[in-house]
Amino acid sequence: MTAPAPSEKAFVPFVSVENMMHLVHHIGIERVLTELTDVIEADFRRWPLFDKTPRVASHSREGVIELMPTSDGAIYSFKYVNGHPKNMAQGLQTVTAFGLLAEVETGYPVLLTEMTLLTALRTAATSAMAARHLAPKGATTMAMIGNGAQAEFQALAMKAVLGITHLRLFDIDRRATDKTMRNLAKSGLHLAACDTAQSAIEGAQIITTCTADKQNATILSDNMVGAGVHINAIGGDCPGKTELHRDILKRAETFVEFPPQTRIEGEIQQMPADYPVTELWQVLTGDAPGRRDAGQITLFDSVGFAIEDFSALRYVREKVRGTPFFQPVDLIADPDDPRDLFGMLQRAKD
Amino acid sequence: MTAPAPSEKAFVPFVSVENMMHLVHHIGIERVLTELTDVIEADFRRWPLFDKTPRVASHSREGVIELMPTSDGAIYSFKYVNGHPKNMAQGLQTVTAFGLLAEVETGYPVLLTEMTLLTALRTAATSAMAARHLAPKGATTMAMIGNGAQAEFQALAMKAVLGITHLRLFDIDRRATDKTMRNLAKSGLHLAACDTAQSAIEGAQIITTCTADKQNATILSDNMVGAGVHINAIGGDCPGKTELHRDILKRAETFVEFPPQTRIEGEIQQMPADYPVTELWQVLTGDAPGRRDAGQITLFDSVGFAIEDFSALRYVREKVRGTPFFQPVDLIADPDDPRDLFGMLQRAKD
Repeated sequence: MTAPAPSEKAFVPFVSVENMMHLVHHIGIERVLTELTDVIEADFRRWPLFDKTPRVASHSREGVIELMPTSDGAIYSFKYVNGHPKNMAQGLQTVTAFGLLAEVETGYPVLLTEMTLLTALRTAATSAMAARHLAPKGATTMAMIGNGAQAEFQALAMKAVLGITHLRLFDIDRRATDKTMRNLAKSGLHLAACDTAQSAIEGAQIITTCTADKQNATILSDNMVGAGVHINAIGGDCPGKTELHRDILKRAETFVEFPPQTRIEGEIQQMPADYPVTELWQVLTGDAPGRRDAGQITLFDSVGFAIEDFSALRYVREKVRGTPFFQPVDLIADPDDPRDLFGMLQRAKD
Repeated sequence: MTAPAPSEKAFVPFVSVENMMHLVHHIGIERVLTELTDVIEADFRRWPLFDKTPRVASHSREGVIELMPTSDGAIYSFKYVNGHPKNMAQGLQTVTAFGLLAEVETGYPVLLTEMTLLTALRTAATSAMAARHLAPKGATTMAMIGNGAQAEFQALAMKAVLGITHLRLFDIDRRATDKTMRNLAKSGLHLAACDTAQSAIEGAQIITTCTADKQNATILSDNMVGAGVHINAIGGDCPGKTELHRDILKRAETFVEFPPQTRIEGEIQQMPADYPVTELWQVLTGDAPGRRDAGQITLFDSVGFAIEDFSALRYVREKVRGTPFFQPVDLIADPDDPRDLFGMLQRAKD
């Protein structure tokens, strides 16, 4: 019972979690974050070209499973991603993901990869891209409120892309802060563990909020946010999950990825439907202003969008070429005669 | 640079094309088709329980890439499937597919598998399930018009589930018919290669149409279809692609999977929005009549629905257990401490 060897076309390069880790170390994590920031920015600049379907969500009491497809007309991508806040209590990841690239012309997949790590990397790179255009010039200090799975990636992206040198950490669970301190001990960043959110934001030009509780929380209240800061709001990313007091939104100039999605999932779900927002891609193309003055509060209301995954997938596809960091898997049948699927099956028996 | 071994939870059983072929031969193809028919019928009987999202299609000039998700509240599934009629000219499959099962409670994937073969199997099993309830009693002869990749699967399912003994084949390309004759030579079916569609349907109680051209074609015209037959229309399955003359639809009682999808994709796209249809699941539960009399023309206007893939995926999940016909792949990251994704990455370097 030996099957004939599948044809070349049947094999799809698969990047496992282990190979993704090897690939990241092979390139260097800060270089990955910098290059990803540039790849995402390049795709944001051609934003109107993309198919922008809202994500397809399957909600349950415990969480959500989402499919996030997009296409630029030549390449199609989708990501499978779950969000299950209660997973952590069982020792499971809140968010896991994998993704696929395919050729639009043939529909044949060309890359299958883990995306739990890749999503953390692309989320951090997207934050860095936004901050590059919105944060006050010469920013050196970031406050990081919420020190969970995303924290180190956010910190290193802001270091690599913006030149952040000081990081001030706060989490309601001190063990999370300790974990982040340990992981970043050799990063070259000056680290400060803080006892309160208020203390963490002292002197920070950039405030990143990245907490996991699925509720309308107030991680930042209005009186905590001074003039001129840039807020990078990561955690408010689904209905019923926000981090900022709405009074902050009234004072801030808000930048978003895809307004129809952000109005449902982002911090601005707290605001009326006509709350003004600027689409981030228009800042990158020069069609809309970014930061206008030193006193302005800028807010990147990040929820994550399919185009960022598309960019991350095409980056990985390019980078794994010629490396040993993938395995070919026969994911799709490709008989010699396309009409003879049954013959292929039958020959596997002989 | 050795990564720590990923945890058990990080591994997802993956069934490659080669392993799917081995699994099918291990069980026996006719038994697979029979069991799949029963599994699909069991899920159709609990139809109201399922999330029924329309498929998410990304159309291009060359074809379509679709994601087909569904869930019964405990298990979530989706299928990736393309449809590219021009692929065949390049030696590629018109339809390729893969799919995934995940636990709703955690969002963690529990099965990744090829679905090109599995889709052919479930499509044939769904046809057999419909015919079991709609075809005239004691049917022995099936006409098969269109002898492409699906033909043998359809024939064997009708043999295994309904006891069809005679198969009459026609295709505009005689080589396709010859291929099907060769592949079914040892099947135990009496085979007849016919020169015209008209000749193929002589004496057939079941007519299966399964052609691939993306156009509004007339594979069957009204005068060809006699009283009492069951038509199993497989090929008309996307906008602009039909096989039957609309006059047949006026005479037939039409049964469909999910009306909102079939009205766009099926044969009935030719008919007004109020053209009456019966939902197949209601026939299975006894909520709607199936075949009422011997003279009636019944039509299963098959387009393929996500619940059939769900059934096929859960069947494969159950059947691969304890066999060597899968490989564990580390598709999703699962660090020991779920908040310490970065630590997992860092330890892979040490």
